[in-house]
Amino acid sequence: MLSFACDYMEGAHPAILNRLADINLDKNTGYGLDAYSDQARQLIREACGRNDAQVHLLVGGTQTNTIIIDAMLRHNDGILAATSGHINVHEAGAIEACGHKVIAMPARLGKIDIDALEHHMATVTAEFNAVGWEHYVIPRALYISQPTELGTLYTLDELRRLRGICDQYGLYLFVDGARLGYGLMSPACDVTLKDLASLVDVFYIGGTKVGALFGEAVVVLNKDIRLTRGLIKSHGALLAKGWLLGVQFATLMTDGLYWDIARNAIDQAMRLRQGMVDKGYELYIDSPTNQQFFVIGNDRLEALQQRVGIDIIEAADDTHTVIRLCTSWATTTDQIDQLLAIV
Amino acid sequence: MLSFACDYMEGAHPAILNRLADINLDKNTGYGLDAYSDQARQLIREACGRNDAQVHLLVGGTQTNTIIIDAMLRHNDGILAATSGHINVHEAGAIEACGHKVIAMPARLGKIDIDALEHHMATVTAEFNAVGWEHYVIPRALYISQPTELGTLYTLDELRRLRGICDQYGLYLFVDGARLGYGLMSPACDVTLKDLASLVDVFYIGGTKVGALFGEAVVVLNKDIRLTRGLIKSHGALLAKGWLLGVQFATLMTDGLYWDIARNAIDQAMRLRQGMVDKGYELYIDSPTNQQFFVIGNDRLEALQQRVGIDIIEAADDTHTVIRLCTSWATTTDQIDQLLAIV
Amino acid sequence: MLSFACDYMEGAHPAILNRLADINLDKNTGYGLDAYSDQARQLIREACGRNDAQVHLLVGGTQTNTIIIDAMLRHNDGILAATSGHINVHEAGAIEACGHKVIAMPARLGKIDIDALEHHMATVTAEFNAVGWEHYVIPRALYISQPTELGTLYTLDELRRLRGICDQYGLYLFVDGARLGYGLMSPACDVTLKDLASLVDVFYIGGTKVGALFGEAVVVLNKDIRLTRGLIKSHGALLAKGWLLGVQFATLMTDGLYWDIARNAIDQAMRLRQGMVDKGYELYIDSPTNQQFFVIGNDRLEALQQRVGIDIIEAADDTHTVIRLCTSWATTTDQIDQLLAIV
Amino acid sequence: MLSFACDYMEGAHPAILNRLADINLDKNTGYGLDAYSDQARQLIREACGRNDAQVHLLVGGTQTNTIIIDAMLRHNDGILAATSGHINVHEAGAIEACGHKVIAMPARLGKIDIDALEHHMATVTAEFNAVGWEHYVIPRALYISQPTELGTLYTLDELRRLRGICDQYGLYLFVDGARLGYGLMSPACDVTLKDLASLVDVFYIGGTKVGALFGEAVVVLNKDIRLTRGLIKSHGALLAKGWLLGVQFATLMTDGLYWDIARNAIDQAMRLRQGMVDKGYELYIDSPTNQQFFVIGNDRLEALQQRVGIDIIEAADDTHTVIRLCTSWATTTDQIDQLLAIV
Repeated sequence: MLSFACDYMEGAHPAILNRLADINLDKNTGYGLDAYSDQARQLIREACGRNDAQVHLLVGGTQTNTIIIDAMLRHNDGILAATSGHINVHEAGAIEACGHKVIAMPARLGKIDIDALEHHMATVTAEFNAVGWEHYVIPRALYISQPTELGTLYTLDELRRLRGICDQYGLYLFVDGARLGYGLMSPACDVTLKDLASLVDVFYIGGTKVGALFGEAVVVLNKDIRLTRGLIKSHGALLAKGWLLGVQFATLMTDGLYWDIARNAIDQAMRLRQGMVDKGYELYIDSPTNQQFFVIGNDRLEALQQRVGIDIIEAADDTHTVIRLCTSWATTTDQIDQLLAIV
Repeated sequence: MLSFACDYMEGAHPAILNRLADINLDKNTGYGLDAYSDQARQLIREACGRNDAQVHLLVGGTQTNTIIIDAMLRHNDGILAATSGHINVHEAGAIEACGHKVIAMPARLGKIDIDALEHHMATVTAEFNAVGWEHYVIPRALYISQPTELGTLYTLDELRRLRGICDQYGLYLFVDGARLGYGLMSPACDVTLKDLASLVDVFYIGGTKVGALFGEAVVVLNKDIRLTRGLIKSHGALLAKGWLLGVQFATLMTDGLYWDIARNAIDQAMRLRQGMVDKGYELYIDSPTNQQFFVIGNDRLEALQQRVGIDIIEAADDTHTVIRLCTSWATTTDQIDQLLAIV
Repeated sequence: MLSFACDYMEGAHPAILNRLADINLDKNTGYGLDAYSDQARQLIREACGRNDAQVHLLVGGTQTNTIIIDAMLRHNDGILAATSGHINVHEAGAIEACGHKVIAMPARLGKIDIDALEHHMATVTAEFNAVGWEHYVIPRALYISQPTELGTLYTLDELRRLRGICDQYGLYLFVDGARLGYGLMSPACDVTLKDLASLVDVFYIGGTKVGALFGEAVVVLNKDIRLTRGLIKSHGALLAKGWLLGVQFATLMTDGLYWDIARNAIDQAMRLRQGMVDKGYELYIDSPTNQQFFVIGNDRLEALQQRVGIDIIEAADDTHTVIRLCTSWATTTDQIDQLLAIV
Repeated sequence: MLSFACDYMEGAHPAILNRLADINLDKNTGYGLDAYSDQARQLIREACGRNDAQVHLLVGGTQTNTIIIDAMLRHNDGILAATSGHINVHEAGAIEACGHKVIAMPARLGKIDIDALEHHMATVTAEFNAVGWEHYVIPRALYISQPTELGTLYTLDELRRLRGICDQYGLYLFVDGARLGYGLMSPACDVTLKDLASLVDVFYIGGTKVGALFGEAVVVLNKDIRLTRGLIKSHGALLAKGWLLGVQFATLMTDGLYWDIARNAIDQAMRLRQGMVDKGYELYIDSPTNQQFFVIGNDRLEALQQRVGIDIIEAADDTHTVIRLCTSWATTTDQIDQLLAIV
């Protein structure tokens, strides 16, 4: 069935499957110590313009968020995140299971409210200085996602402002890039990969949603963050056949494949969006990335669901529902045409 | 110096010190297996009217909250609490350090907003049913404090309503009673100890702030909560000289001493309150318990602080500050008179 | 280069790669709720003769051990394992990172010493009964691997005896089957899959080392073990594209493919073993499975290592070394011939 | 009843009770920020000859061990300890509950076998270097107790040798001093407090067993160990009425009271020992401190237990039992005489 329910319904870009088949019966070295992983890590360092970066290849998003945060925080440290941030709502308490509080900050359209963040840090700093920091969870890191869970983007100016706040208050800045390709390839995005790599302490390049079977490439830029292979192993996340990750990211990072296929998702999303608007559908959020949100009358919803896979977000009011339609690297023009013919 | 900064500035009721001195050189049995602890546990069961209750004597409040919550929750379970709840703000992340998320709910004057709680539970239940509970922190328990951190009280009707919500959604109901005496002894309180013991799954009777050198008596009423001595030990909280706790609670629970000395704090708080109001001070909250909150002009604040210990809560506006004055079991009429002569 | 260094150097059985390619651009359902995963789980239940079994598909071995153990244990519970058990030596403390002690028991040739285990349980039970269990880590589960890390096998009689000990002392019996196919397909093995499923509380069928790209299929037989999808998610182990696991295990479990390819590893291991013995190499352990251990003179070792990948286990004495040679589902007759021509 | 079952049966030295009574109704500052705690910390720094030491006052032994170890270790780090070490056997898994493995080393008479330790470190270092440290628990600290759980003592030479091993392999050296007074005051001990403070990274001076109602004074000498007040709070171990600890240690550390009363326990232990030997009892261990161990015929055991509290250690053989008799700061000459009249 035609579906736009999420952006991880397909397997991998065919180039990846082909390369995996090519080396399938080779005797590969385990645990990410293979040449493919080395190549992937080097290509990522080069793309970031940061030859000093440490790169780790992990399997999935929650796992990656957990390990990065566990590497950054100690004891009574916590991490600030938008109320709507993935780690605050959709990870079954994985961060807390590692012993750390997610400190929820007000959000607007998926983005942390920077004024509110600044006010919060000023307020708690004054308060904790007065009474003693030992009674509190100490904000030690800031989590944002680019693009956000609602498809929106931080601008370069906003990232710089967040960097300034982090510097002022001694916070690590961590960017969840599960959909990074779909963010940076949006025409609305004024942030480049090198900008990101020069501004943040750690981020990752999402593969699961952008052309890989699975995989997230963590880029650690601040040497104070001790994200070791032993930490990864102790989380059960050191893949025995690490070359599976190496081959995938080496393929994606060669000749800009990752960015090219990400751009396809944006192009198709823009066609989808325009087509829906032309047919009178109301946008819920002005998203410049691959996730598009619409308000749809409940009378039309059921019929639509029988023909197209969609994601229900929440009730808009008694008679309308917010839905999400996602494109991906694999979305075809034909699929968009079919959708627009149906709606 | 005269001080009303908090309610744990004094040691213990003299009767406790005397009994500790009496048995000081006896050969006592360790780890809470002594006769004093047995007596204390039995007196507490009787006072609660629940001979089936399990009673454990612990040292401090954060320790007690952590152990109770660790006993109730597993894996991706979380605990609901008012935004202003002690476990959410003042315990340095001790709950998260045990692996569990505190799910913050809107609060009014220190009390959880019951309508908001009910709405939240209905909403997330519908949402989790639709998408699968595995992505979320599952609310498994509700934390409230009686009286609250702002001195306010839940009524019997409110407790019953909370019990109903907990029954409907499969939540344990846990009452932090760090100041329980100061709550139940308020003339404004329509909840008795037996009411509490019949309505909640677990609660504790605070000793540290109400006449003991230290100590919190946990009363477990729901047998599904496996709060074992082994759990206590693994938290480093099984006091070697457990009889120190046994003697204190046996003393406090004999002839109603705990309740009598708690009532003194209320009586003195009411005198303090009336005196302050008579002198034109503005109440910040209408608290019927031993913590009294006032709004005071910043011009008078510094002079006051030089003569009386007070607790600064927060800025009320640019020229006024919210302060807290606490009475305790040890507060004397003379101390209140001195305060009222100063302000 | 020719290599027998481990049994997870190759990718997957070609039938798996083909099926993954076939469905690569389908719109698949996420998080293991797809039809392939359903089919895999049902085929596994049928093969086990336990239609009541809960089956979960996970990515890797350490992750799987951690999640199973976290599901079985609470608070001050621990898990018994052979000193040489994988969880005790090779998992970077992943079990302890979840809060639980691995209680190491004497081992012989990779197998737990059952007499020593029985003696230990009798002794600590008496001791803990005398002093109080609260001071100790309570043995609550027993971990064994079949085959073991040294290639040896538990007999059916031994498994029954372990079951009896577990019943007597209230222990869960957990079998790590990372190489299960290579164990059950050995002619020396008198244990069937159905035997295992009728005797133990939880075990897993290893895919990573037996024909899959990755994947371990957990079979939970005791309903008291609450291994939930939420627990899996909170460990960062709920694979977004769960159908990748479903397709792999559905393929392996169809028409006995898993067992057939496992048998190849045994056949090749027996040829390797006989060839080495014929050439005068000394066996270190009498292993009936795919891992073969030899004692080799250090004078020959370096030359060998330049032509064949091998695994160094430890020094046997000043002039000899213990090495391991592994076969796998992918090992060919030609590879064994090449090896035997070299040594 | 006459009892020598353990060394924490009595309350506190009368000087402590008197001082607590003196300040009982004062308005004291909370959380260890009071003048008594300042004084105690300063007296301890002076006694140690280490004005740069950080001192923290905690309540109990398991709590203290857990917090110190949690401060020293990260991620897949573990701590080496004698098989018989308290953290390995008597703390209900508290260390593992904080995420860390206790790596058990062979012991002789309660002391870690230093040759075995040295061999272990050399072996695992070679092995981990070969295969990659990420698969293993990394030894990062060494735990010893002085005196040990069996009453024995490390000599100054042994401590220096341990220091050398720790330096060579990058280990923190941590000394559990729950009975430190009873160790350093033994005529057989050639280690002074200043020696200890110059050789180890962290240790503590036990109060619970040596004259205090409760309390352990942690002395952190290595600034890399981040034992913060926030960590203490997040473990539920920041005592609200911290001055109770301050007063106790200030009293004990004034005019050498702690050492004087510790010496009484040794003097009485030596009388007890000589008396028992004179009566033909067999020493189990040659202990120079306050714990004395004897082998006693089972025919005499029951009668003895009816008149004297003793601690049963284990069966020596079918007809004999190992027992422990402890003296303490509170043991009187008369009590020893009574015991010797009975046996």
